Amino acid sequence: MHALVYTGTQELIYREEKNPKIVNGESIVKVSASGICGSDMHAYHGKDNRRVPPLILGHEISGTVDKGKFAGKKVILNPLITCGGCEYCSNGREHLCGKRIILGMNKPIERQGGFAEYVSIPDQNIYELPKTLDINEAPIAEPTAVALHAVELGEMELSKSLKDTKALVIGGGAIGLLSGLILSKIKKCEEIVIVDPNKNRLRECSKYLNASAVDPSSKKIIESYFDIVFDTVGLEATRQQAIKTIRPGGTIIHIGLTQPGGTFDFRKATLQEITFIGTYCYTNKDFEKTLNILSKKEIGSLDWIEYRKLKEGSRAFKEIHGGLCTAPKIILLI
Amino acid sequence: MHALVYTGTQELIYREEKNPKIVNGESIVKVSASGICGSDMHAYHGKDNRRVPPLILGHEISGTVDKGKFAGKKVILNPLITCGGCEYCSNGREHLCGKRIILGMNKPIERQGGFAEYVSIPDQNIYELPKTLDINEAPIAEPTAVALHAVELGEMELSKSLKDTKALVIGGGAIGLLSGLILSKIKKCEEIVIVDPNKNRLRECSKYLNASAVDPSSKKIIESYFDIVFDTVGLEATRQQAIKTIRPGGTIIHIGLTQPGGTFDFRKATLQEITFIGTYCYTNKDFEKTLNILSKKEIGSLDWIEYRKLKEGSRAFKEIHGGLCTAPKIILLI
Repeated sequence: MHALVYTGTQELIYREEKNPKIVNGESIVKVSASGICGSDMHAYHGKDNRRVPPLILGHEISGTVDKGKFAGKKVILNPLITCGGCEYCSNGREHLCGKRIILGMNKPIERQGGFAEYVSIPDQNIYELPKTLDINEAPIAEPTAVALHAVELGEMELSKSLKDTKALVIGGGAIGLLSGLILSKIKKCEEIVIVDPNKNRLRECSKYLNASAVDPSSKKIIESYFDIVFDTVGLEATRQQAIKTIRPGGTIIHIGLTQPGGTFDFRKATLQEITFIGTYCYTNKDFEKTLNILSKKEIGSLDWIEYRKLKEGSRAFKEIHGGLCTAPKIILLI
Repeated sequence: MHALVYTGTQELIYREEKNPKIVNGESIVKVSASGICGSDMHAYHGKDNRRVPPLILGHEISGTVDKGKFAGKKVILNPLITCGGCEYCSNGREHLCGKRIILGMNKPIERQGGFAEYVSIPDQNIYELPKTLDINEAPIAEPTAVALHAVELGEMELSKSLKDTKALVIGGGAIGLLSGLILSKIKKCEEIVIVDPNKNRLRECSKYLNASAVDPSSKKIIESYFDIVFDTVGLEATRQQAIKTIRPGGTIIHIGLTQPGGTFDFRKATLQEITFIGTYCYTNKDFEKTLNILSKKEIGSLDWIEYRKLKEGSRAFKEIHGGLCTAPKIILLI
């Protein structure tokens, strides 16, 4: 089969690879579309010890089952594979399973990803494509589940309704925009500021999201003002912006993985009773809720997605790396 | 009146000061006992910009009302003075009031503290001493309210009962011991590890608390093991111990103010959905609950408190600074 293979830091090669083999309890899916995630970019930069070259990246996947019990069905994949038996899996928090693996990773266990013509996947990770959802748009389900989980984690912490909160979203990438769309269109939040240094991307977000889209120097980013801040970037600088702008008793939801360490204002966090929650996954229930949201078009048009061909994937990675992409999401079509 | 005055970094002088004057809505309390808090030590080290010399420190206070509407009553003071009218004060989160001040601080507003013969206090901050509580022990109510608030913040985050959780308490000072006692005696938590580098203090904690009392190199401090970790120290190193030992989906409660910054493993926090909550105060309701707990002796004997005379307070500060104190709490008697 053809596949886009991550072969070394900032290097992807479109080449011939062996087809995946079917095993008991799993299926082979012929991939239709596969989205590029920030964590794929993180791997591309050589900074992810769970994704070591050579490896087929990609975990936001739609397609048609080629071999397996759902053969012929159009499907979306939940790329998060968990053990099913541990305390977390038994209590609806399977995303915290110690044995969890994600498609497109090879440490500690290899699972080739979706930037290829075919991918293998356990049957319980296969969801039927809702009839009203386009198969090429469908990979957006995965980051939408991430954003839904993040927004609802925040919602549980708040002492008031999300409708009445002031929300700051740091980052106008897919997770930032999706968090904003869920806040606005599903949770009816009326005061949202989204911040990104990339003006083209802000303009793109503004077309779809009812929010103030501003650059980091804007006066709308008021100190100790926001009830909830979503840091969808995860840089030392964005975390510092988050702790600076959060109001006393507020909640920071941290979804980014860009910089693993760096200093932070723990004094403010302590004196002002700030809650900081890290998240980057979702439960099976979140994934199902997301499919329902997308099937009903509850987050509106998905025209902000840009499509490229798989064989041109290397160029897409280069453009994202170079900050040349306006679209918050690029999906590769196979 | 006589007072112990903080006059400069690591300097306290017992000297004559002017008596406080009574104003409308306030009372003058003749102080019986006043505890030394970690935040007083922080000021003593010249590291608290809210406590600038010259200043009378101390905010854990019991005494007898000398002038005011409760004259003659034996009382305990809630040193947290709030505006009463803001959103926080109206919603039972008055400890987050933007105008809050604490006795024994002078920035932005001066409120002399309790290391003196007399102190002034708004009437609504005065609580009658429960009959079964010794007036000299009574200042422990304030740090007990801090610990109760911290434990109950953690309790709200957990997906199971505190009884069934594995808890790590970092620090064997008053807040560490009190958090442990509340976990053990009130919340019935059965697996508690308390860690401190000071062996004498560990031995003292062991006499009162049903927990494994260990030094930081102990094998009982297992990586990614604890459902909840209380960092009652707030050093970069203790926060790193907290994030290392917390299990996926777990909660870190951060009560210390020792080091305001420093790096942290935000990658683990994100990948493992860790909740980090800063806290150092309590609500009025927490303070009332605490008086009830202490009046019923629910956290057991308070014989771990050591008493000194106010005029010997400077020496007590020196001994705490030098790590020479075994007792988790020193209360100065006036």
